[in-house]
Amino acid sequence: MKLLRYGAPGAEKPGLLDKDGRVRDLSQIVLDIAGAVLEPEGLAALRALDPDSLPVVAGIPQVDLRLGPCVGGIGKFVCIGLNYADHAEEAGMAIPQEPIIFNKWTSAVVGPNDAISVPRGSVKTDWEVELGVVIGKPGAYIEETDALDHVAGFCVINDVSERDFQLNRAGTWDKGKGCDTFGPTGPWLVTPDEIEDVNQLDMWLDVDGERMQSGSTSTLIFKVPHLIAYCSQFMSLQPGDVISTGTPPGVGMGQTPERYLHGGEVVTLGIAGLGQQRSQVLPAG
Amino acid sequence: MKLLRYGAPGAEKPGLLDKDGRVRDLSQIVLDIAGAVLEPEGLAALRALDPDSLPVVAGIPQVDLRLGPCVGGIGKFVCIGLNYADHAEEAGMAIPQEPIIFNKWTSAVVGPNDAISVPRGSVKTDWEVELGVVIGKPGAYIEETDALDHVAGFCVINDVSERDFQLNRAGTWDKGKGCDTFGPTGPWLVTPDEIEDVNQLDMWLDVDGERMQSGSTSTLIFKVPHLIAYCSQFMSLQPGDVISTGTPPGVGMGQTPERYLHGGEVVTLGIAGLGQQRSQVLPAG
Repeated sequence: MKLLRYGAPGAEKPGLLDKDGRVRDLSQIVLDIAGAVLEPEGLAALRALDPDSLPVVAGIPQVDLRLGPCVGGIGKFVCIGLNYADHAEEAGMAIPQEPIIFNKWTSAVVGPNDAISVPRGSVKTDWEVELGVVIGKPGAYIEETDALDHVAGFCVINDVSERDFQLNRAGTWDKGKGCDTFGPTGPWLVTPDEIEDVNQLDMWLDVDGERMQSGSTSTLIFKVPHLIAYCSQFMSLQPGDVISTGTPPGVGMGQTPERYLHGGEVVTLGIAGLGQQRSQVLPAG
Repeated sequence: MKLLRYGAPGAEKPGLLDKDGRVRDLSQIVLDIAGAVLEPEGLAALRALDPDSLPVVAGIPQVDLRLGPCVGGIGKFVCIGLNYADHAEEAGMAIPQEPIIFNKWTSAVVGPNDAISVPRGSVKTDWEVELGVVIGKPGAYIEETDALDHVAGFCVINDVSERDFQLNRAGTWDKGKGCDTFGPTGPWLVTPDEIEDVNQLDMWLDVDGERMQSGSTSTLIFKVPHLIAYCSQFMSLQPGDVISTGTPPGVGMGQTPERYLHGGEVVTLGIAGLGQQRSQVLPAG
């Protein structure tokens, strides 16, 4: 299944993308794509529906039908740093011995085609295409062998980052990762049964049509089951939590010369089987 | 006003502490002490009530009536590091030039008298009494002169910390700050009108009756208005967000020899005018 949320910001309705690429309305079935709906029983109930029985929503998704973030009420947005060896190299940082965990403030989350706003005072707003893992089944101290049972689905995430805020402003990375609009999430949540091999997904990101990032989840240092098990040693995980698994090479900080977003650009990105995002970049307001 | 939440974990009801120390039920008036209820109009509506007209809830708060975290649905739990000069010294760290911001995962939040669980693998679980600021009015890029208008109230927070996870596990502090039960919050949210001077509040923390921390908000390096304005440069703030403002000296890491929680201890703490917490410490399960 491909689950999504459509409508005005803050008032999104739940929906499902059918096999013909139309949005089907789920608002008579569930309140939101969030919380308990993401648990195994909740997803099983949606899977039991006949999509043809659900009302078609007018408008073409991502063209004239706004999509919200594909998960509502995200409780924790956990990010993994430097999880591709070649990205660690371009960032001039050592390959980590264990996963680096940092936070994206949940107020940063927006839809997959919403604008990205450069924050005031920014000089180094950067992009990062990432595979997102959405938790379905709650847990703590999860065994790696059980970890995939805790996944509701996967999605595309742009882990937008302000490098100067992240690295040069006293302390943790959190200042540069959670500015408003820094978390485009979606277009849809794709359940694991639709993904043949999560470790073989091509991913890409363009700025104004120029290919900047090109990678594959095959070069992840720490794979999805390990990341879930690892994170769950330091916090319990709840349905609707998101783990963003890190970015492959090609970020702006890694270019020669460095290249950043200032407003006016269009960033497009995608992961095979998970759909695409398209974000207009707005200058600092 | 002193606002609180009482009842079983996850099913707390909203309440108010009256002038005689009894809990009055607010569940016929509002759904929760959360979100829009914390906005200026929401608090004004509660202030207009006659407490004597509200039902008294049976049980003595903090004795036989469980209190939940005094704010529901916390969206962001923003912590400030090394914000007391003498604590920075005991931690062996330089006084920061600007506030250090880090994150406490919201799944760590518990009631003021709930147990604190030592996480598996922990050897350095530590305590930190802190003044919490609860946001009422949303905003971004808030001016320091307007910052106090955005405060719904203040509360006691124990910023429980696992020092080894925080400092020695590759990367940001976030691994050691957001373990489950690491965020006791309350007993009550005290509105600003009840606080004569937020910069003159004595605070203390005992372990098994022995005084460990003793301080005052008068020695905060960065004061509350500055912290609100500063944080709002990096994220928008919403009603129900919490900023925990840092801890005075006396943490376990600062003792000679260092001293940590392993289970079996009782931690009590409080801030003048904001009430007290009492947490039993449980060994790793």
